[in-house]
Amino acid sequence: MKTTNKKTKILITGAGLCGSLLGLRLAQKGYHVDILEKRPDMRKAVVDGGRSINLALSDRGLAALKLVGLEDKVRELCIPMNGRLIHDVEGNTFASNYSGRDGEYINSISREELNKLLLDEADKYEDVQIDFDDKVTAVDLKNASVTYYDSETGTDKEWKADILLGTDGAGSVVRKAMMKQRDFLFSHSMNWLPHGYKELSIPPTADGKWRIEKNFLHIWPRGGFMLIALPNLDGSFTLTLFMQYDGDGPAFNNINTDQEIKDFFNTYFKDVIEHIPDLVEQYKANPSPSLGTVRCSPWTANSTSLILGDAAHAIVPFYGQGMNASFEDVVVFDEMIDTNETWADAFKSFSTTRKPDADAIADLALDNFVEMRDSVANPNFQLKRQIEMRLESAFAKAEYQSKYSLVTFPEKGIGYEEAMLKGRAQDKAILWLLENGDITVNDELDSLLSKIKVKTEEVLWLRG
Amino acid sequence: MKTTNKKTKILITGAGLCGSLLGLRLAQKGYHVDILEKRPDMRKAVVDGGRSINLALSDRGLAALKLVGLEDKVRELCIPMNGRLIHDVEGNTFASNYSGRDGEYINSISREELNKLLLDEADKYEDVQIDFDDKVTAVDLKNASVTYYDSETGTDKEWKADILLGTDGAGSVVRKAMMKQRDFLFSHSMNWLPHGYKELSIPPTADGKWRIEKNFLHIWPRGGFMLIALPNLDGSFTLTLFMQYDGDGPAFNNINTDQEIKDFFNTYFKDVIEHIPDLVEQYKANPSPSLGTVRCSPWTANSTSLILGDAAHAIVPFYGQGMNASFEDVVVFDEMIDTNETWADAFKSFSTTRKPDADAIADLALDNFVEMRDSVANPNFQLKRQIEMRLESAFAKAEYQSKYSLVTFPEKGIGYEEAMLKGRAQDKAILWLLENGDITVNDELDSLLSKIKVKTEEVLWLRG
Repeated sequence: MKTTNKKTKILITGAGLCGSLLGLRLAQKGYHVDILEKRPDMRKAVVDGGRSINLALSDRGLAALKLVGLEDKVRELCIPMNGRLIHDVEGNTFASNYSGRDGEYINSISREELNKLLLDEADKYEDVQIDFDDKVTAVDLKNASVTYYDSETGTDKEWKADILLGTDGAGSVVRKAMMKQRDFLFSHSMNWLPHGYKELSIPPTADGKWRIEKNFLHIWPRGGFMLIALPNLDGSFTLTLFMQYDGDGPAFNNINTDQEIKDFFNTYFKDVIEHIPDLVEQYKANPSPSLGTVRCSPWTANSTSLILGDAAHAIVPFYGQGMNASFEDVVVFDEMIDTNETWADAFKSFSTTRKPDADAIADLALDNFVEMRDSVANPNFQLKRQIEMRLESAFAKAEYQSKYSLVTFPEKGIGYEEAMLKGRAQDKAILWLLENGDITVNDELDSLLSKIKVKTEEVLWLRG
Repeated sequence: MKTTNKKTKILITGAGLCGSLLGLRLAQKGYHVDILEKRPDMRKAVVDGGRSINLALSDRGLAALKLVGLEDKVRELCIPMNGRLIHDVEGNTFASNYSGRDGEYINSISREELNKLLLDEADKYEDVQIDFDDKVTAVDLKNASVTYYDSETGTDKEWKADILLGTDGAGSVVRKAMMKQRDFLFSHSMNWLPHGYKELSIPPTADGKWRIEKNFLHIWPRGGFMLIALPNLDGSFTLTLFMQYDGDGPAFNNINTDQEIKDFFNTYFKDVIEHIPDLVEQYKANPSPSLGTVRCSPWTANSTSLILGDAAHAIVPFYGQGMNASFEDVVVFDEMIDTNETWADAFKSFSTTRKPDADAIADLALDNFVEMRDSVANPNFQLKRQIEMRLESAFAKAEYQSKYSLVTFPEKGIGYEEAMLKGRAQDKAILWLLENGDITVNDELDSLLSKIKVKTEEVLWLRG
């Protein structure tokens, strides 16, 4: 079927962040879109707590929101975070900016508020039909049809579409259908971290203000585990403790009693306790879900179906890029629709083009967990950051961007894969030059830049 | 349960190469072992053709066979292959030895003959009980019990053991049970190549001799696809064509008619045709199975079960290490039994220790497909091999081993991971030094070795 055929019957499974943005964009392009969502309408019902309450929104995600005309509205929901604020065990703090350039920061945003906005905007289009409380139970990829439980009638129903877009998240039913199907070679992996996470909350002050510095992503790095905090608009912070389930040292399975919980926080996060009167209650009440990476290929089957967002590439949260990657999917797919004659070709092009970038951000996110947990450990790492700040302040983006900037504040057209390859090579090059005394932090800038560029090219070759 | 308890009820699923060697070894250690095998006894029934008829046996596999006292018997089934014999499109051939050292070669061996020998040897122990035609249909990991279809009675039966060792191959039922179980985080992946394979056969001459050079692994590298040949004891060769299923250029799905098959071989493998009178018939009769890599972690569940061999780490065949890796598993597990007090600890230690090596050989095998397909393309690659041959001829193993040698002819204690990291770094170092004119092939040997060592250390640091 042709992409120019505006009568194409499009079914999207999942009205989360990716599905609602995708539905909105397709409606803007003149298509009619039906969306099935298993959860109730979050604009009417209470949303579960304890699971990724806030997210980091940065340039890649904002570019997608700009595409649908929502950048300004979304900015109103954002709290800028200019860098990391690192808390050591003694309670000292150290700021580390995300970029040496002005105006480059990431944003803390509520998943729920952003999703509601996207649903509201999608609802403005008559050509978007969202059905909530309708759980997809089976998928027939060949026929682009799904079976779903229709909550209104309490019966199973069929939905036959022309094309099926699966934005149904990390546990995607569409992806599972691809795994089951034997008539094509579907590669897939599910990798779990030995660490889980637990959300906690620092309440606002009595007058609705923030109890710790507002415009930072706070990190309490402790080697094998860490605590982070992101600010919310109401003055609260969402804390997330990332820790192994089992093993030597602190672990979820060893910290259960009131005393164990108190001792643990007293030992490692003393400066946090004063801000959370009901710490023990929160700790015991909230779940400790697991963290995994989903990869698969291809993302399309039978010329009828495509998976996007977490359904195709769920990643761990340590680069703050999960939502951004899903939103960027919509931008890339939007281009593929315009540049391919048939939906089948658009699906194939999207899967082929986008897969290396999805793999790269998955790897980067895993690496960053180690970097965040250990971020005060390596002295040369601190010197490297100082050098990169100097270079970013002094030179244009095209001349120098750190790995973090390449990933988070990219020039147009730089995908995650390019950012990863170049960024990792730069990191190794700078650390090597420091280690061997070939550069120092206060060297003249042109000389620094040129030495780093030469060594980076060599490292790229040697790592390739 | 303690490893010293010789009354431990041990159930092995699968009496293939890994399962039969494992059963034999455990009996030698004084345990009683039951093995369930879904296939008929290959010593009595005809074995399916068209699927990996012969294999490459090298030092890691031979070390395991030595452990059970079978090295000499197995050597009688072997045909040494001293190197690759590369066939270009014009029919010219070029030999490339596997090592610069004497006595380092790999061996072509029949999977069936080797498996039969292992079964015969296992059968000599009263404490090994092998039941054929008994397909395991369900596994209860918690209780170390399995349900299997008992072919004698035509009914499903239960088998309750103390520990369960899954050596049931790439499609392992035990691994699938681990995937299904939700009470631990089981990471797993299945990655398919876009290429499948098809086996063909060059018959012996009328007097039972080999029609092409006997003591080589023959390769017809053609970029995106390749043909290889391994010698058999009866004078025949098993050919394997590795080729993509779909896409531009030659592909299984585009080569179907008699004429297409003839044209394809005439264009790319002209020097093979004369040796195979019934080429078209063979091509059409034999299947073209797919090639995949299985990874997972951990390899143990519920303190009762462990998977080994292909069940835990099925790899693509391009390094000739699949069987060797499985046999080496038995050696490593044998040590774990001796050095751990409980079976649960032995399982955990084995899984933790062995997993990085299994991942490494999986990666190396994937890389080697590209190297084999393209092996005449890069001129510096040829120069690198010449340098490595000179170094291997001149220096002791501890001084220099190529990546291939580290993998295939290792000094005791060098695992696949170490071989991969060091071998890849050496390759990059030599290619870099050649590219930049820092070394030439005929340089003085001590100087070559020292420059390569220094650069290799740098590359290891920069790639780490």
